[in-house]
Amino acid sequence: MPVDQLVDCDIHNELTPGALHPYLPPRWRAYHETYGGRGDGGAGYPKGAPRAARADAWPPSGLPPGADLEFLREQHLDPYGVRYGVLNCLTTACREQNPGYAAALCRAVNEWQVAEWLEKEPRLRAGIVVPYEDAALAAAEIDRAAAHPGFVQVLLLVRTDEPLGRRRYRPIFEAAVRNGLPVGIHFGGGRGRNPLTASGWPSFYVEDHTAMAQAFQAQVVSLVVEGVFEELPELRVVLIEGGFGWLPSLMWRMDKHWKRLADEVPHLTRPPSAYVREHFWVTTQPVEEPPDPRHLLAVFDNMGGTDRIMFSTDYPHWDFDDPRRALRLKLPPEARAQIFGGNAMALYGLS
Amino acid sequence: MPVDQLVDCDIHNELTPGALHPYLPPRWRAYHETYGGRGDGGAGYPKGAPRAARADAWPPSGLPPGADLEFLREQHLDPYGVRYGVLNCLTTACREQNPGYAAALCRAVNEWQVAEWLEKEPRLRAGIVVPYEDAALAAAEIDRAAAHPGFVQVLLLVRTDEPLGRRRYRPIFEAAVRNGLPVGIHFGGGRGRNPLTASGWPSFYVEDHTAMAQAFQAQVVSLVVEGVFEELPELRVVLIEGGFGWLPSLMWRMDKHWKRLADEVPHLTRPPSAYVREHFWVTTQPVEEPPDPRHLLAVFDNMGGTDRIMFSTDYPHWDFDDPRRALRLKLPPEARAQIFGGNAMALYGLS
Repeated sequence: MPVDQLVDCDIHNELTPGALHPYLPPRWRAYHETYGGRGDGGAGYPKGAPRAARADAWPPSGLPPGADLEFLREQHLDPYGVRYGVLNCLTTACREQNPGYAAALCRAVNEWQVAEWLEKEPRLRAGIVVPYEDAALAAAEIDRAAAHPGFVQVLLLVRTDEPLGRRRYRPIFEAAVRNGLPVGIHFGGGRGRNPLTASGWPSFYVEDHTAMAQAFQAQVVSLVVEGVFEELPELRVVLIEGGFGWLPSLMWRMDKHWKRLADEVPHLTRPPSAYVREHFWVTTQPVEEPPDPRHLLAVFDNMGGTDRIMFSTDYPHWDFDDPRRALRLKLPPEARAQIFGGNAMALYGLS
Repeated sequence: MPVDQLVDCDIHNELTPGALHPYLPPRWRAYHETYGGRGDGGAGYPKGAPRAARADAWPPSGLPPGADLEFLREQHLDPYGVRYGVLNCLTTACREQNPGYAAALCRAVNEWQVAEWLEKEPRLRAGIVVPYEDAALAAAEIDRAAAHPGFVQVLLLVRTDEPLGRRRYRPIFEAAVRNGLPVGIHFGGGRGRNPLTASGWPSFYVEDHTAMAQAFQAQVVSLVVEGVFEELPELRVVLIEGGFGWLPSLMWRMDKHWKRLADEVPHLTRPPSAYVREHFWVTTQPVEEPPDPRHLLAVFDNMGGTDRIMFSTDYPHWDFDDPRRALRLKLPPEARAQIFGGNAMALYGLS
């Protein structure tokens, strides 16, 4: 229907990659290339480290970092003499909005882990990926997958829809205990529902990465205060990639509040710190590094020793901790042996 | 219009106070009486401590705790020999949704503080209450109120709509510096927009109270990472009722991330911990109390000394720290004098 003066009220012009390059000042051009947008919810990885990977972790096969078992052996397991490595497969499968789809994806991920990794490499173990926002489906997947001896823990991500101590998640922890598995809680997760801080979304990736430690703190508090460990005294929880320098003062603070507010939580029979000391393990990367390494020894001391600290590298990610250079402080040989192997062997039943 | 069979589809039956009492099992009856509902957003005060007050802080005058200057003198200033006391008036005025109303309320609060408190009692100083979600209005109130010498800081609450380093809040910090005042950030705030944790709302008040420390952590990170102290090198910030046991490991973590991600924040010319050490002060209550008091000395050591630590009681609130019993650890006399007075005198320009 031709008219004299046509008006189209919706036409889209599209930016091509690099189109803005000449129009950005150098500082923000670099930012655009290296960090880029972090989405509505922040907390993504810098664009300049695609797949959050070390630049040298891209295998010659053309597969993405961490996707090539042979290269993993060559670059990581062999040269560092890794006796056992625990795979924590990071995938959005665990938090898809459609629970049935999430469960199907997670089961597929776990079957793929068995076929392509655990059956092919005796040094590897893995965490069971579960659709954790639907605890019943997650528990069913734990009961199914745990039959394979290569699975040594249940894997959750730290940013959940609600704090993990709340009852809706209890079937996950029950299933873990029923199958003799610890529950690992890893850096990451979230699906835009909750901002990363109590004051909303921060501006910078440095903030996202720092704030994740506070997400871990909230989960520790929730699991302890809700009485999960009273209900499930055999439950063991591993905090992965969340640091632990904050753990001592968190225990002090919880104990202080509990002394005065114990009547709110009569289901707790012991000070909160007692549950932390008994039920939590932590991995090292990214270990907080005080200017004076002795201050880290004070943290260990406050945690009641080194028997709950387990070394990790975060391979192949950009913030990898090199086993030869991590934890450069004076530790008794037994403590070093515990941290770099013994504690994990004991927790995960490796030998 | 009478009909044969009238149906009213909306009638309300109302619970009277105590109506549920006989129907609740003892544990939840006690909970109902002492803690009660915490609203959609959690983080309120326990019902069993009305107005969050010490039971003995209700003045014989019938006024609420903290409302009776004469009783404040008798119960607190005189017996403890308080030389100066800084009033931090907690009111929802600062976060009313209507910015004009909020500004009018805050101005009224400040005028009331001058007339009823500062002019009547030479030992008292106060924080300027501001409508901080509208920074332009807040800055105007700072410029107006700062003329009175009794105001020694600007008072914000820690749970803001966005992290305080974001540019929308910058006029507040500029106004504080312009008027030579530190900015105090106090426990509390929030208006239901952001959950208290990165995984949503916790179940228990113990959790709310513990999680507030994480809200403080996020604000420290935001103020440092956004470069507020590069723009305003004279800005001084006081963290009030947020604890500080978490501060050392937060500095370690920020420095570690900054080393690797410095190109994201080229506006920072120094390690994040350097800004913290230079620009932040903390108050003691509720001081985290490690089982071994020497561990608190390690925290002081990690903070670079005791020159930024200022004693506080939180009078008349339920979790009051008694000056005669707080900080029972071996401190050099100079450090004790700093913490219990000298640091505040220097910061607030008291003599």
